Amino acid sequence: MTEIDQRRRTLSARLPELKIDALLVSSPANVRYLTGYAGSNGILLLTKSDSHFFTDPRYALEVAQQITCKVHVEKKPLLVAAAAIIKRKRLKKIGFESSWLRYDDYIRVKEDLPLGSALHPIGRIIEEQRMVKSAAEMSLIRRSVATNSEAYSKTIRRVHAGAREMDIAAELDYQMRALGAEKAAFDTIVAAGPRTALPHAHPTPHRLGENELLLIDMGASQEGYASDMTRVAHTGTPPKRILRLYKAVLEAQLAALSSIKAGITTGEVDAAARNVLKRHELDRAFVHSTGHGLGLEIHEPPRIARKDKTKLQAGMAITIEPGAYIDGLGGIRIEDTVLVTEHGCEVLTPTPKDLIEL
Amino acid sequence: MTEIDQRRRTLSARLPELKIDALLVSSPANVRYLTGYAGSNGILLLTKSDSHFFTDPRYALEVAQQITCKVHVEKKPLLVAAAAIIKRKRLKKIGFESSWLRYDDYIRVKEDLPLGSALHPIGRIIEEQRMVKSAAEMSLIRRSVATNSEAYSKTIRRVHAGAREMDIAAELDYQMRALGAEKAAFDTIVAAGPRTALPHAHPTPHRLGENELLLIDMGASQEGYASDMTRVAHTGTPPKRILRLYKAVLEAQLAALSSIKAGITTGEVDAAARNVLKRHELDRAFVHSTGHGLGLEIHEPPRIARKDKTKLQAGMAITIEPGAYIDGLGGIRIEDTVLVTEHGCEVLTPTPKDLIEL
Repeated sequence: MTEIDQRRRTLSARLPELKIDALLVSSPANVRYLTGYAGSNGILLLTKSDSHFFTDPRYALEVAQQITCKVHVEKKPLLVAAAAIIKRKRLKKIGFESSWLRYDDYIRVKEDLPLGSALHPIGRIIEEQRMVKSAAEMSLIRRSVATNSEAYSKTIRRVHAGAREMDIAAELDYQMRALGAEKAAFDTIVAAGPRTALPHAHPTPHRLGENELLLIDMGASQEGYASDMTRVAHTGTPPKRILRLYKAVLEAQLAALSSIKAGITTGEVDAAARNVLKRHELDRAFVHSTGHGLGLEIHEPPRIARKDKTKLQAGMAITIEPGAYIDGLGGIRIEDTVLVTEHGCEVLTPTPKDLIEL
Repeated sequence: MTEIDQRRRTLSARLPELKIDALLVSSPANVRYLTGYAGSNGILLLTKSDSHFFTDPRYALEVAQQITCKVHVEKKPLLVAAAAIIKRKRLKKIGFESSWLRYDDYIRVKEDLPLGSALHPIGRIIEEQRMVKSAAEMSLIRRSVATNSEAYSKTIRRVHAGAREMDIAAELDYQMRALGAEKAAFDTIVAAGPRTALPHAHPTPHRLGENELLLIDMGASQEGYASDMTRVAHTGTPPKRILRLYKAVLEAQLAALSSIKAGITTGEVDAAARNVLKRHELDRAFVHSTGHGLGLEIHEPPRIARKDKTKLQAGMAITIEPGAYIDGLGGIRIEDTVLVTEHGCEVLTPTPKDLIEL
């Protein structure tokens, strides 16, 4: 049995406790996790005893070679096809991904079901199963992290004042792919000067000036698995105010990393970073959460957020990325991809955390 | 009044006919269309008399400069914040994008609303408003098409047998961005040899062989607006069977283009392509629809699909992309981005449609 088959079996075994006879899975990341299918139109119907995969004719050839479920190639909408199987197999209680399914699709399936069958929201239980990574998954995340850091390192040494944000971003993405990533895990953020104060700036034609901050937030996707890293550099010698801001954020990031181990809550990790920034009177400048899980999606559970009660478990892959943003001065964020272990964590990102001068 | 303000006004004016007091807009493309906001976390509440935009603190600085609605920067979930305004303004009938909103979010808003207020599904009326493009939108689509074709042309002349699919894709994307696109509009498809028979192949380390087909399907995103094009090339002289397949698909594509004008249905355009392929006994090899609208999304209404009754209107931007896929031999698809006009269409894609030899 492959690891993917085992994942479906683990989930199937949970159906009785969820009080459902079958589970309808339509979110692409969950479908990929449970079948290996990486295309854009596939859904899975999982019962206690078997699993049915639905796709359209464009994918007929590739799924025939790859998918170990019963494959249904359908011209009709896939949810309609799944409803027909539910009817034929007389399944009664059908769980669905309530955080994913669109209202119209929910109504469509509901109206297609026979009388006596009903839909039951199951929230994000598949995402919860995905939180702890297998060795095979961790190996892909490690490769994704390595690719990402190498692309950064190859690019950053050639960046100088005058370069446009958008060209730096294009070069980073190109290097990632030359090194084997299938794509960037998300739209690469490159922000220069005062634009670093925008935590989610998109790269523009703005040119990196002399004596300016440069913030880069990037991740690779390698066989579907994400990495995520943020680093900051400066053209010329950074002024003291920037150095102070940088040191505070770095201290917060290291404090969060030190706090990590299996058993503590993600809220405690968030607090570790937030308390340091508070001591530096920068808590109001830290306008987002401390991190997030990552894997088949760039953002997946757990959230590393204020007061969050989720307990860390060994094998979780998360990011730690405190930041501080000051209008007019600029923003600093330092982010690593991290593996939670029994007694601490392993920082996977190998890129040094000095504020480098370009 | 800007064009974006006018779009909101047009939509506001439709609220009475939709029998709603306000409209809750959360799909990113619709939010961007109606506000100009291009970030990842923004929603809009449109009433008959005003409009409220909600985002989180990460975007506070940029939206303050750009958005002409009443701006609410919120730490709580945006839908919860919107529900509070609905309550305060005593709005009763709230339309929502039922093809977009997730089931859990629907329930959350529903439970947050005061007694006496209710949610009403409105389907895809904003997407319908988006179908006919303004002059400003068409100018962005034209730029996107030009960027895309130039990136293709710069790359294809340097492709030769031995190149890996993934490296060709990386080069195409890099060229698009060097030419001013902010990113690829979708994951670029590069398929070589028998893999061309997979209509949505992702690029792999597979190397383009001697005497092989190469299929490239790519689009640029320029200030949010998409282009879409597919071309096929061949290393060495194509064998007769490939030439026959190519000529049939080209004939189908030209037939579909010739059929386009304001007033006919998209189903008729689809039939024009499909009938040609049927005459060549290739209708079963044509496993997808003939095309789709594009703009702020790579796939948006109308669909150019079998029996679809949507009427073409002057100003719609669509793709025409028939294809034929034969397991073992390969696949051909030819796709242009097209502007529908009163009496015909303008093919925007300037790239020649010969089967070029590499």
